[in-house]
Amino acid sequence: MLATIHRSGPHTRAALAERTGLTKTTVSSLVADLLEAGAVTETGAVRAGERGRPGVAVSLSGHRVAALGLEINIDYLAACVVDLTRTVRVRHIIPADNRNSDPAVILERLRGLAKEITAEAAAEGLRVIGAALAVPGLVEGGMLRSAPHLGWRDVRVADLVDVPLEIDNEANLAALGELWFGPRESDFLYVSGEIGIGAGLVVQGGVFRGTYGLAGELGHVVVVPDGPGCRCGGRGCLEVYAGQDALLGDLGSVTELVCVLESGDEAALEACRRAGHALGVALTSAVHLLDPGTIVLGGIFAPLFPWLSEPVSAGLETRLGQMRGAPPALAVSSTGSDAAVLGAAGLVIQQIIAEPAKLLGL
Amino acid sequence: MLATIHRSGPHTRAALAERTGLTKTTVSSLVADLLEAGAVTETGAVRAGERGRPGVAVSLSGHRVAALGLEINIDYLAACVVDLTRTVRVRHIIPADNRNSDPAVILERLRGLAKEITAEAAAEGLRVIGAALAVPGLVEGGMLRSAPHLGWRDVRVADLVDVPLEIDNEANLAALGELWFGPRESDFLYVSGEIGIGAGLVVQGGVFRGTYGLAGELGHVVVVPDGPGCRCGGRGCLEVYAGQDALLGDLGSVTELVCVLESGDEAALEACRRAGHALGVALTSAVHLLDPGTIVLGGIFAPLFPWLSEPVSAGLETRLGQMRGAPPALAVSSTGSDAAVLGAAGLVIQQIIAEPAKLLGL
Repeated sequence: MLATIHRSGPHTRAALAERTGLTKTTVSSLVADLLEAGAVTETGAVRAGERGRPGVAVSLSGHRVAALGLEINIDYLAACVVDLTRTVRVRHIIPADNRNSDPAVILERLRGLAKEITAEAAAEGLRVIGAALAVPGLVEGGMLRSAPHLGWRDVRVADLVDVPLEIDNEANLAALGELWFGPRESDFLYVSGEIGIGAGLVVQGGVFRGTYGLAGELGHVVVVPDGPGCRCGGRGCLEVYAGQDALLGDLGSVTELVCVLESGDEAALEACRRAGHALGVALTSAVHLLDPGTIVLGGIFAPLFPWLSEPVSAGLETRLGQMRGAPPALAVSSTGSDAAVLGAAGLVIQQIIAEPAKLLGL
Repeated sequence: MLATIHRSGPHTRAALAERTGLTKTTVSSLVADLLEAGAVTETGAVRAGERGRPGVAVSLSGHRVAALGLEINIDYLAACVVDLTRTVRVRHIIPADNRNSDPAVILERLRGLAKEITAEAAAEGLRVIGAALAVPGLVEGGMLRSAPHLGWRDVRVADLVDVPLEIDNEANLAALGELWFGPRESDFLYVSGEIGIGAGLVVQGGVFRGTYGLAGELGHVVVVPDGPGCRCGGRGCLEVYAGQDALLGDLGSVTELVCVLESGDEAALEACRRAGHALGVALTSAVHLLDPGTIVLGGIFAPLFPWLSEPVSAGLETRLGQMRGAPPALAVSSTGSDAAVLGAAGLVIQQIIAEPAKLLGL
């Protein structure tokens, strides 16, 4: 019933009964529970032509229940609180250097951030009832199996927050962030450029995860089989050519890189061409295997899109040309570096709407 | 109800009512229709402890209804008839050279083959009620968009048989053939080695098809970005190194290749090592993107497995080593070159069981 309200807006109780096939008594009782739990609210906005008590429609409430999104990135920690209507209410980013860090120290810092933002949300009347954490690594069975850039291995995240916590790969959550908070409809490959490069394939509104939840590791698709060694143990992986370190060279940040690119710096332009060429090769392989409708470049590739799009498109067109009518459309992410933390909060919202009883404690 | 019988064997009508939640009257009426249509039969085998008229159980019938599988391969045409219990009842293979052929001529030959095998099935009392066709190319919206090795483009297959006909890529159907007629459970990547190389990813008992049904084109995953040109327009695709032409060299057939490999011919051994190395690179990219539980080598890679498995495994272990606990298991297909035509017939059986009313004309 919550999903019906979520999909198609405010409804009277009578309209809800019609739409869901439940009896009016059942609907009234469920609505009472959801009102009590703060998930819905009564408004005056009733659609024309609907029967039932005029003027009393039920809609999702953005005022009482919220989800907490968290992210551990290589060079920042992020948190956001999103209400049930998917409006971002509070968000924080703390720059940090988390490379080769001690998990206990970072998790303690994140615990502090979560506590702080939960309190800020509470000051706005919002109760956080679930959380999800985006991490730059492979997650299996709720455990962070390996995050090579953090230098973490087999880390179990427990007692981070006082509410149920999910943990997932940042590229998967960023793909969902782009789906729920960006302009995407469905069926796209989200490419997450960070220090590592991941990808999340969105299929019919969900992320394709593979047998062990390890799918989408675009950064280790082989570009040059006997190329330079990669920290994964392989050679010539995409990450070696198009990861943040390869793009930045001696520069300190992506902002700085954009500045020198704008000034026409030849070394920076060449780094982008090289990265774009490698992305074109790896994405050719990805398109042949996954057949996405659209490719969305996100993370640090979003601000670099003006310099990357031409070599990437050229590579896709040349290599894919005769196999298909046209290569998939190439688009820039609209959620940028917020995608993963938004996707984390969005995942919790999705769970509340799909199974309200569980997180609302009905 | 047919799916319940298919999954868990003969049931009394009472047991079917219990399992499906339908009333006994409804079950009796449905069973009468299915008996009439020849989809089920009554047997004496009743499971211990079940209630209902003793001795009268309902099970799938292998005696009256059947599916036709068809395949256009580069160097043969194949057909098989499979009954509702997934027993292969008749099968035929006609060697042919279909490269750069006239679609009308080949389809006419296939029409003859389908007519002949349908008549043979009829002589055994089997009525073919649906058919599926495996083709070595890209299928979109029921149309063969492009089959480069046949030299076909935008071919619509109509009036091939007198029953409803599906058309699908041979690698997808071969993957399903391996699932339904081989020892696989679910979640594997089937690699179809032919003149071209395709792949079918089986996820939870179905094939992953991508946005336009074009997923699984493993043969055009990039192995060497500036390698030799491929007929797809790209360069250094897997097919260039591990397709049938690369493996055979001057030899006339895979059987001949196996003979010279057994005699220790160095050129043949080197061709297998080169193909195995390229497969290791392309499968590394595929594992990173798709995360399959098992990799199954099929088609011509099945008889060549003794020479391919070592270089492929070595490549996967070296390149995937530090990212996951272990690379996916590497297995040899048990259905060999029959996989696609079996999968085609199996697809129809699957449809009959899922929606009996449609093909049985209930």
